[in-house]
Formats: sequence, structure tokens, C-alpha cells
Amino acid sequence: MGELVGNLLVAQSGGPTAVINASVAGVVQEAGKHGCIEEIYAGLNGILGILNEELIDLNDEKARAIEGLKYTPGPAFGTCRYKINFAKNPELAAKDMDRLFQVFEAHSIRYFFYAGGNDSQDTSNRIHAEAVKRNYEIRVIGVPKTIDNDLPHTDHCPGYGSAIKYCATTVMEIGLDVGGMATDDGSCCIVEVMGRSAGWIAAGAVLAKRNPQDAPHIILMPEIAFNEEAFLAKVKETVALNKFCIVVVGEGLKNAQGEELGADKSRVDSFGHAVLSGAADRLAELVQGKLNTKTRTVKLGYAQRAAAHFASLTDAQEAAQCGEAAVKAAIDGRSGFMVKLVRTSSSPYKVTTGLQDLNDIANVENFIPRDWISEDGFLPNEKFVEYARPLIEGEVRPPTEGGLPKYVILEKSKVEKILSPRS
Amino acid sequence: MGELVGNLLVAQSGGPTAVINASVAGVVQEAGKHGCIEEIYAGLNGILGILNEELIDLNDEKARAIEGLKYTPGPAFGTCRYKINFAKNPELAAKDMDRLFQVFEAHSIRYFFYAGGNDSQDTSNRIHAEAVKRNYEIRVIGVPKTIDNDLPHTDHCPGYGSAIKYCATTVMEIGLDVGGMATDDGSCCIVEVMGRSAGWIAAGAVLAKRNPQDAPHIILMPEIAFNEEAFLAKVKETVALNKFCIVVVGEGLKNAQGEELGADKSRVDSFGHAVLSGAADRLAELVQGKLNTKTRTVKLGYAQRAAAHFASLTDAQEAAQCGEAAVKAAIDGRSGFMVKLVRTSSSPYKVTTGLQDLNDIANVENFIPRDWISEDGFLPNEKFVEYARPLIEGEVRPPTEGGLPKYVILEKSKVEKILSPRS
Repeated sequence: MGELVGNLLVAQSGGPTAVINASVAGVVQEAGKHGCIEEIYAGLNGILGILNEELIDLNDEKARAIEGLKYTPGPAFGTCRYKINFAKNPELAAKDMDRLFQVFEAHSIRYFFYAGGNDSQDTSNRIHAEAVKRNYEIRVIGVPKTIDNDLPHTDHCPGYGSAIKYCATTVMEIGLDVGGMATDDGSCCIVEVMGRSAGWIAAGAVLAKRNPQDAPHIILMPEIAFNEEAFLAKVKETVALNKFCIVVVGEGLKNAQGEELGADKSRVDSFGHAVLSGAADRLAELVQGKLNTKTRTVKLGYAQRAAAHFASLTDAQEAAQCGEAAVKAAIDGRSGFMVKLVRTSSSPYKVTTGLQDLNDIANVENFIPRDWISEDGFLPNEKFVEYARPLIEGEVRPPTEGGLPKYVILEKSKVEKILSPRS
Repeated sequence: MGELVGNLLVAQSGGPTAVINASVAGVVQEAGKHGCIEEIYAGLNGILGILNEELIDLNDEKARAIEGLKYTPGPAFGTCRYKINFAKNPELAAKDMDRLFQVFEAHSIRYFFYAGGNDSQDTSNRIHAEAVKRNYEIRVIGVPKTIDNDLPHTDHCPGYGSAIKYCATTVMEIGLDVGGMATDDGSCCIVEVMGRSAGWIAAGAVLAKRNPQDAPHIILMPEIAFNEEAFLAKVKETVALNKFCIVVVGEGLKNAQGEELGADKSRVDSFGHAVLSGAADRLAELVQGKLNTKTRTVKLGYAQRAAAHFASLTDAQEAAQCGEAAVKAAIDGRSGFMVKLVRTSSSPYKVTTGLQDLNDIANVENFIPRDWISEDGFLPNEKFVEYARPLIEGEVRPPTEGGLPKYVILEKSKVEKILSPRS
């Protein structure tokens, strides 16, 4: 495999994480070491911007700004939920693919890195396959990124550690607040976190629990069918014991019939997924109504995937490492792979990177193993804790200005367009 | 005024803050300097625990633990919402008062400090008046504490700075997340924060705004009557300009008829206040329904008053200072006052403590002045920013263990009961 000379394009996709930019920093810093990589571009708003030939010249950014990406949340170059969807609209998808390769060709893109979750890995896989078909020499490597932690074959996903560090911290703090106010009347607080089908984020809140009486007392994961009677009995028992009960619920919680508690079927996103809202509100109605226990809700929403002010240093470092590994793999001549994290030792925790064929990744979801959850289904067990604990170690401490984090603002100087506008 | 020898009792009341325990640390550390103060007790769960003669011996706590209270959120000794309510139930109130003074007498309590908001300052005031009436020598000083920042006569309230530091940080991070995902479709995120009648917390989120296009774009404060038409026009304009719009709303937002957007009139708390929920959800329905703009909500709830992991150092220091000032005032022979913060200079920011007669405080609410809010009512202006900015300066950095804050756990050794149980 000879040296491939050309330009690099990196883009971000899907829901951001607190460390999504750390992966880009890893890509850029590693790319700088390889002479065969000439220009370094980022696509604006993922694949969507690339189709519109909206490219950013990363060599115009200050080195300090690139380094600052390691603690800056939100997608620095924008993401999209746009998907080249052959199943839904093969005609448009074929047209998009043509356009994409026109952009690649016009800008001599020979290295393409796409940071994202399941859907984005599928996009990378299709681009790789298309390049092979077209005999267009390009190296396509997927970079894992999702707070949902549901990508298969990787030990865990960059973004997940920071999300659960924030959620566990928040649940610990809410526990101190609610527990301190608890009198004989009893009270309940239900914290809703993200997770459409996998309960990884909800489960992560268990790390807040240092003693049996500590919050969280109940974690409802979408993997376990919701049983109203058992849930209410558990809340009642917990309130009787502690005078308060902190419940964490993954937004996608389902009953035995597979119906989501919080689904509002009238709203769907651009991928056709039902927009979920209100699992916590539904549960609060139940507890308040059936147990007559004062109940409040917290819905962390977007905050949980952007909380870089208390991100996991382990997570941020691994995210950067995945970006570096992607470039190294491409330089080595690999294409059509996703970088994965491989845990080589649990105690002490050691991780290295590996590669997995994108065919094994796309659209496969990874769930919490049943034997990582207590028998009654209300808390993850020691196996989960052993898995998750190292992922939140260490603090990213972004610089502050005027008492608030000083996140990086990029120049984003645009690469001159060559093509005529996308029709 | 001669030296008053006896024991000290400190208690916490109402909704906690991230720095509520810093005030107790201030009380305890200052009390340790004065020989006339013998035992140092805390009441468990505020006035409610005192009525039940549940006292904690603070001299049994390690000095390190007392110092650790300065970064530990939640009420370390518990709070309550119980009120000695002469208006509602004069008979019970009179009985409670008798019991309270029995407890004071039985334990030689000569110094009483109560950290709380409006309701709690009222309680302190009644206890002071009762002591005068009974000719029982005790010095009662209120310590200000509320994230709501609605106590009058004090420049601001301990707890507020940390609440808005957290809310502004969160809104900044959400802005980076949502802004980074914004494509031509446009999107909106509505963040609901606390504040039943005053919009101080909502207003504080404006500190996240460093440039005109930054989040938050709209802040809805309960002080300004909600105008649906103007609001929707503003969201539409903002989305057209930025492709996204971040709205912050105080939970108690009202329309021109004074009706709360989020009130569920079927639920009231033990003070008879309507339980508010869903201002953000109501607004999201509006934006989604009338503008057809994708809208998500975040409800920070209890998290915003407990987020010690990123508390304001200025706030924590001032909270401790208020506790110290309370003891100094009592030693000086004062009773029936609340400690207040007095801003002696704006640039550089300088604050000292003063005293205000509790008669001037109880049940008076302090609102954002109208001329601190923009003409259209959608954002606080420079006057507010000048006021609020210094309050979030500096970071409390609690120690961490295993990637999570290591908050203090107290011994809480109970003082032996002397009285027969409360009937």
C-alpha cells in the first residue's frame, strides 16, 4: 500500500457529546504529523454541509484553538441528522452520493473521518463501499461518538463517560437536597435522562451510590419492561425506609407490550423516531396519584450531553485517542473501519484502540447485559459498576472567564467553493 | 449589655442551596472563638426537629468535616417547610411556641441562628418577639439563604450566585449543543428554572451571553406578563436569524391576568402554594404547534439548587461570612435582625455585611426592577448584568473520589433528650 497524498476531511454527526470535539482535535493533531496529508478540512454540519460544499479550513485555526477543542462541548463544526437514505429514497440517495464524490474529487479528499453514532457509522460504511465501487481512492474511518453507549464491538463510546459523570453527580447532589428536606411525609424525585432504547445513561447514575441508603434508589432502564405494581411497591418501601426516594429513568422506558411510557406518537424526528418526552412526568403522576407522595421531576435533556464543565478526563483523553487512531489507521492504508476502544485490563483500567469492520457496526445496538442488572431489575449490579466506574475518572477543567467556562470559538474560515451549487 | 453565657443552636430551613452549609460552617467556626458560647448544637430538620428535641452536637464533628460543609450541598442537618403559623392555626402555633421555649430552656439555648428565606425569617422574627414577651434571654439572628434572591434589603442572597452560575453554564453548554445542530429547519430549546414569583434565576442565565447571537435568546421572567403573540414573534425572528433559539423561563411565568402558565391547580404544597410544573412544556407546545419548529425542553429542578460541583466561590465565601456575622452580631447583644449583604463598591466588587430588623424582612419579596429589563421584556439589560456578574466569580472545587465530588458526611451525634415527647 503506497503513500496516499491528498486532503483530509473530518465531520461530526448526530447528537453531540461533551467530548465530540476532542476527537476532532485528535484527528487534526495526528494529521499534522503526516506529510502525505496536505489540507485539513472540516465539513460544516456533517454530511449536509459537505453536500453543500461547505468546508472549513482547519489549518487556519490557531493551534491553541485546536487544543481547546478538547474541553469545548457541542459540535464545533456543527452536526446534522441528515442521512443518505437508500432505503427511504434511493433516487435522492444516489444523487447525494454522486454529489459527495464530486465534492471529494474537487477538493482532493483522500481521507475522510466521520464522528458519530449508529446512523453515522452506516453513512461512513456506505461511503466506503461507494468509493470501492467507483474505484475512488479514499480512506474512510468512523470515529465512535455517542452518549448512548450503544455502539457494538467497542468497550464503550467516547461521550458516555462524561454523560454519566454529569448524571451521577447531579443525582448525588439531588439526593443530598431531597434527602435533607425529607421529613415523615416522604418525598420522591424522578430524574429523566436520555436513552431511547438502551439504559446505559440511566444505569450510570448508580455510580452516585456510595452507601445503600444513597440516591439513586431505583433506576428504570428501557431494557427491563416497566412493571407499575412492582415499581410503586419499591417506591413505597424506599420512602418508608429513607423518607425519600430518588428514581432515575431512561426516556425510552417501555412496558411489557413494548409501548413507551413517554412517547408522544404525534411527533417524530427526521429519522422517523418518535419524539419522547415525559417518562418522568408519567411516573410522577403515578407516584403522586397512587401513593400520595410528593413528587417532583428533573429532565436533564440536552444539558447531559454538553456538560463539559465537569467532563470526564478519561473520556476526553480517549475521545482524542480515537481521533488519532483513526488517522493512524488511514495512514496505514485501512478503510471501512470504525475505531473501537478495547479494555485490556480492568484493574488497573487500561484501554487501547482497535479497528472493527463498519459492516459489523452500522445499525446494530448494544444493550446492557441482563446479568449486569439486579434480579428485581431496579438497579445495575456490581458488574456494571466495575465496567462504568473507570470511565468517569478525572476532571476536565475548562478555563473560566468571569465565572463561566471559556469555551473555544473557532475562526471557521471557509474553503472556496469550486462546484456549482447542489441542485 | 453583659456577656451572655449559654449554648448555641443553628438550624436550616426551606429549600436548600449549594452553599447553605457554608453559612453553618461560618456560624460554627466563629462561635468557636467565643468563650461565652458553650455547646454548639444544630437542629435536625429545622424548627420541626427542634420541636421534637432532635439536636445534633456539632462539637462532636471533626474540624475537617465542618470545613467541608463549605462545599457540600443539600442541608447537612436537614430542613423543613414547617411553619409556626399563627394566621392559619393560632392554637397549634401557641402550643409550638411553648414547646420551642421548653426546648430552649432545657438545653440552655441562648443563641439561635436560622438560615432561610422569607418564611424562615418570619419564624425567626416571631421567636425573637416571643422571647422578648417571655423575658427569655436569647439572641436570634436570621441568616439569609435562598436561590430565589427575593429577600429585601440585602444586596443579594447567599445561594443565588451558585444557582445562576450553574444555570448560566448549563444554558451556555446547551446553546453550543443546539446551535451546533441547527440547520435550516431551525430548532428551539426551552429551559425551565425555579422562581415562583421573582425571575432572578431566569435572569441570571443572561450571563452566558457573551455575543448577541449567543444563548440565551429569550428570558421569560414572572415579573413581565407573558404575551403569547410577542413571544412567538420573537422566537420566529430568532430562529430566522440564528437557526436556533434558546429560551429560559422562570417556572412562575404568568399571563396578563396573573394566571400561571405552568400551574396545576390541583396540587398545593404544605404552605398552600400551587405546585408549579410545566411552564416549559406549555411553551414548547406553543412553539411546536404554532411555528412548527422542533422544540425540546430541559427542566433543571432540584439540580439547580444543589450543584456544588460548580458553585460560585464568591457565593460560598459570602455564605460563610453571613454565618460569622450572625454570631458576631449576637455576641454584640443584637437580636431580631437578619444579616444582610451590602455592596460597598461595584468596581471592584466589594461586599460587607450589615443587619436589618427582621420586621422589615418577613414575607416581603424583592423583584427585579423594571428598568433592569429590556424594553421588550425579553432579556435583562446591562444594569442586571453589572449587578449579577460578580456573584458568580470563582469556582468552588470540591474534592473528588472516583470521579465524583466527595461531599462531607457528618457524624450527627444526637444530644440526649431531656423533655418528654412533644404531644
